[in-house]
Amino acid sequence: MLPLQIQPESRIPIYAQLRDQLRALVRIGQLAPGDRIPPSRELAARLGVHRTTVANAYAELESEGLIRGHVGRGTFICGQPNGAAGANGASANHAASPAPASPAISPAKTNGAIRWDGLFAEERAEETLDRLLPTSARNAISFTIARPPENLFPLDDFRRCCNAVLRHRGREILQQGQTDGYPALREVLGEWLRTDGIVGPQDHILITDGCQQGLDLLARVFLRPGDTVLLENPTYPGALAAFSSRHVRAIGATVRPDAGVDLEAIGYALERNRVKLIVLMPDFQNPTGTTLSLLDRRRILELAERYRVPIVEDHIYAHLRVSGQPIPSLKALDRAGIVIQIDSLSKLAFPGLRVGWCIAPEAVIERLRLAKQAADLHTSQLSQACAAEFIRRGLLAKHLDRMRGVYRSRLEATIEALERSMPEEIHWSTPEGGMCVWVTLPPGLDAVELLVRARERGVIFAPGRLFFLDHAQPNTLRLGFAELNERRIARGVRILGELATEQCRRSRRGRSSRNGDLRAVTLV
Amino acid sequence: MLPLQIQPESRIPIYAQLRDQLRALVRIGQLAPGDRIPPSRELAARLGVHRTTVANAYAELESEGLIRGHVGRGTFICGQPNGAAGANGASANHAASPAPASPAISPAKTNGAIRWDGLFAEERAEETLDRLLPTSARNAISFTIARPPENLFPLDDFRRCCNAVLRHRGREILQQGQTDGYPALREVLGEWLRTDGIVGPQDHILITDGCQQGLDLLARVFLRPGDTVLLENPTYPGALAAFSSRHVRAIGATVRPDAGVDLEAIGYALERNRVKLIVLMPDFQNPTGTTLSLLDRRRILELAERYRVPIVEDHIYAHLRVSGQPIPSLKALDRAGIVIQIDSLSKLAFPGLRVGWCIAPEAVIERLRLAKQAADLHTSQLSQACAAEFIRRGLLAKHLDRMRGVYRSRLEATIEALERSMPEEIHWSTPEGGMCVWVTLPPGLDAVELLVRARERGVIFAPGRLFFLDHAQPNTLRLGFAELNERRIARGVRILGELATEQCRRSRRGRSSRNGDLRAVTLV
Repeated sequence: MLPLQIQPESRIPIYAQLRDQLRALVRIGQLAPGDRIPPSRELAARLGVHRTTVANAYAELESEGLIRGHVGRGTFICGQPNGAAGANGASANHAASPAPASPAISPAKTNGAIRWDGLFAEERAEETLDRLLPTSARNAISFTIARPPENLFPLDDFRRCCNAVLRHRGREILQQGQTDGYPALREVLGEWLRTDGIVGPQDHILITDGCQQGLDLLARVFLRPGDTVLLENPTYPGALAAFSSRHVRAIGATVRPDAGVDLEAIGYALERNRVKLIVLMPDFQNPTGTTLSLLDRRRILELAERYRVPIVEDHIYAHLRVSGQPIPSLKALDRAGIVIQIDSLSKLAFPGLRVGWCIAPEAVIERLRLAKQAADLHTSQLSQACAAEFIRRGLLAKHLDRMRGVYRSRLEATIEALERSMPEEIHWSTPEGGMCVWVTLPPGLDAVELLVRARERGVIFAPGRLFFLDHAQPNTLRLGFAELNERRIARGVRILGELATEQCRRSRRGRSSRNGDLRAVTLV
Repeated sequence: MLPLQIQPESRIPIYAQLRDQLRALVRIGQLAPGDRIPPSRELAARLGVHRTTVANAYAELESEGLIRGHVGRGTFICGQPNGAAGANGASANHAASPAPASPAISPAKTNGAIRWDGLFAEERAEETLDRLLPTSARNAISFTIARPPENLFPLDDFRRCCNAVLRHRGREILQQGQTDGYPALREVLGEWLRTDGIVGPQDHILITDGCQQGLDLLARVFLRPGDTVLLENPTYPGALAAFSSRHVRAIGATVRPDAGVDLEAIGYALERNRVKLIVLMPDFQNPTGTTLSLLDRRRILELAERYRVPIVEDHIYAHLRVSGQPIPSLKALDRAGIVIQIDSLSKLAFPGLRVGWCIAPEAVIERLRLAKQAADLHTSQLSQACAAEFIRRGLLAKHLDRMRGVYRSRLEATIEALERSMPEEIHWSTPEGGMCVWVTLPPGLDAVELLVRARERGVIFAPGRLFFLDHAQPNTLRLGFAELNERRIARGVRILGELATEQCRRSRRGRSSRNGDLRAVTLV
């Protein structure tokens, strides 16, 4: 019998676990060409998973050329996986749309001279989110990603900015620059954020390659291997990646439906662990879309002060409020100087530029500058100079005004469609901004199974389990609405509603028949 | 008496050690406003350093407003250092020209609420090269940096490329991209480097933010805290920074004058240590300018294969050969698939773009891709797309042709000027390309003292000690010639020659008078 082990609590969907384990068995020789593997129905029954899950894993392995079905005879191993990326390397077939697998310059084959597997620092590489996210055919309605729609980029404005800076400051921009950032960008950001009360008199700015690098540099500056960081659970998976690559222990504080991170969970974690850093996203949290109240913000600042633990405030969605009253950021409320804010252009305008920033007291920025110098010397000055000019001309403010209107309408369309289409057992967050709505299916249902069916009907989304550090809730999913227009949102959610309704009905039936002997009366 | 400790072997110049220690004493309260500090002559005698060294430290502290001299009374502490960056924070006054200190958004003062010092992972931050490098007045002849001269950037060509890619692929470029790089760039690089025999059939490419990020990602992928990496000694200080930030142990193999890294030192290091990675720069090594012979390259590959240790080949200067026969790169000679090559545009054309790349077998690139995703998601697509178009149109090849001519003439001017101006006790490397010449003063002389005098006459360079992991040779210095025209090279080296001649003469006198009692006869 095949040694397959399913971990239902893992961030990795079950079908991907199956696929990866079968691929690994071929690679280590435990399955050889010609071997027969069990029919999907049989394997599904044995593992206690849905048959579609197994079928999905098989379909991907078949598209890789690893297995082949023969009518009337069964399914057989027929070769080595494409490429030589080790057991964890995903082939091009299941790469996500934003990041397809690196195409080989020429067909890749191992020459056998050196085996790299034993030479890496980590025995096993974790799959990254971009590879785990579902892909689909070209015209799928994709709620997968949270990013600005490229068809609304103000391209002409941008090109004019780019031309102007190259014409007037070209030599300076293309020459090596300062580690803490292009001065003109730090200046316009400072002006903008000072009027927002974010930048205080003690603060300096460091430009980063987006928030991801902000997290990575903070991990480098504040945490030694084995130290503990406190994250929200669920959270942005890139945060987890940044900290785990530093051999840091990440613990999670639960995010409450519609109320942001749980204060008691934070207090509990701080009391029982020597936490070195807290990372929070108080506004339109990714993935839940929830926002922390003013009172909670003040209480969290008190906790951080009491335990002397710096807070990293991920501010990346905060500018995208579309309804309700603005709440001051942790950075603006901070009196002890204990908050470090990271932010980025990536959700506001042009993710491809990789321009973000960190705002913190000078002593922190100085350490981050040293870390940044060791990491990559500095951020692209072409990106920085264009961003600076775009902000200086008031074009970012104008673009943001427009996009808030767009996102308001799309968020409303999402909520309306959910209200219209979803059975009453299903719940969702009601964000006042950002790019995501968090949907919770009844306990016992699995969003990956919903995804497998939805994909067949041309709709995809991110299963919630990908965002959990631990205690994953398989019955959750994230809908990123920013890239879809209202018509596609309505259609996509309607299809999800139909499938979810069916899934709920099946689950009730299954439960009533399983529990029939015991509680037949109550369940009828 | 003040508790000042000078470490002559340190990478940090003596005057900077003094400056930093005095600043720290003020900060911790051991020196208070009104306290008198010893006259420079007295302190110099006590510490056994040159008086100019002490005077230089005092001058910087005075410009920071920390001390003040009163005629006839002496020098007194008069305040706290500017800024609140901790004892290691350099003030704006002695920042290097390429990276002046972050100017405060508003005047920085500690508010006393939280002390950051105890919260960082490292108690003490090492100063970075850009802060250690000497600065000077505007029109100084600076041999400090190794980078392309911005006045020869083909700006119009670049702007046309930028316009074209924004016009035709703007939405794609400004949207989030793939972690392993913008496809068009990987493609043109692949074509270019395949014809050079560098990219083999097993190889993939990952785009990085320059070579610095290549080193950082490799450290992440191959080394766990406590592991050992083998570097050249002296080497590029950024390599040391990348590895030390991972808590990795770096050991050095000596670089021979004019012959590249010592094979025996490598063999010895591999035999006695469990080395996980070797980092080499076989062509025009930074800082020495030396090149490894073909025979040595083959022997190093054999060693690496025998010990199964991957080699990172830093190829950043290799395209800049201006005389002699080209020698195949380690990557091109590699049969075991054990070489990972890192390279960059930064020495060829536009350092400000931060575009570099890694070439390696697919299994390695896959791990680097995961590391890159945790580090910053991807490199600026605007930078990448412009670079791709610049290469695709043949403009990089054209620019390189031109620049090789420029560098040939500048290198020859440097060597000629050295031959003309330097006393015979002084030696230097004779590179066949790259951007640096390595100069060795007679043993016992200190390049930092030469620098202090040279700066007064408007000439600056990088003291050799900054490039050593250990066993620093204080009598060495690096002359970066790429940014200076022939006239300024001749004048700068003439001034260095005058000062070095004087220094040698003084040293001979000093030695003969110091050793007079014992060996008067032999020394006369």
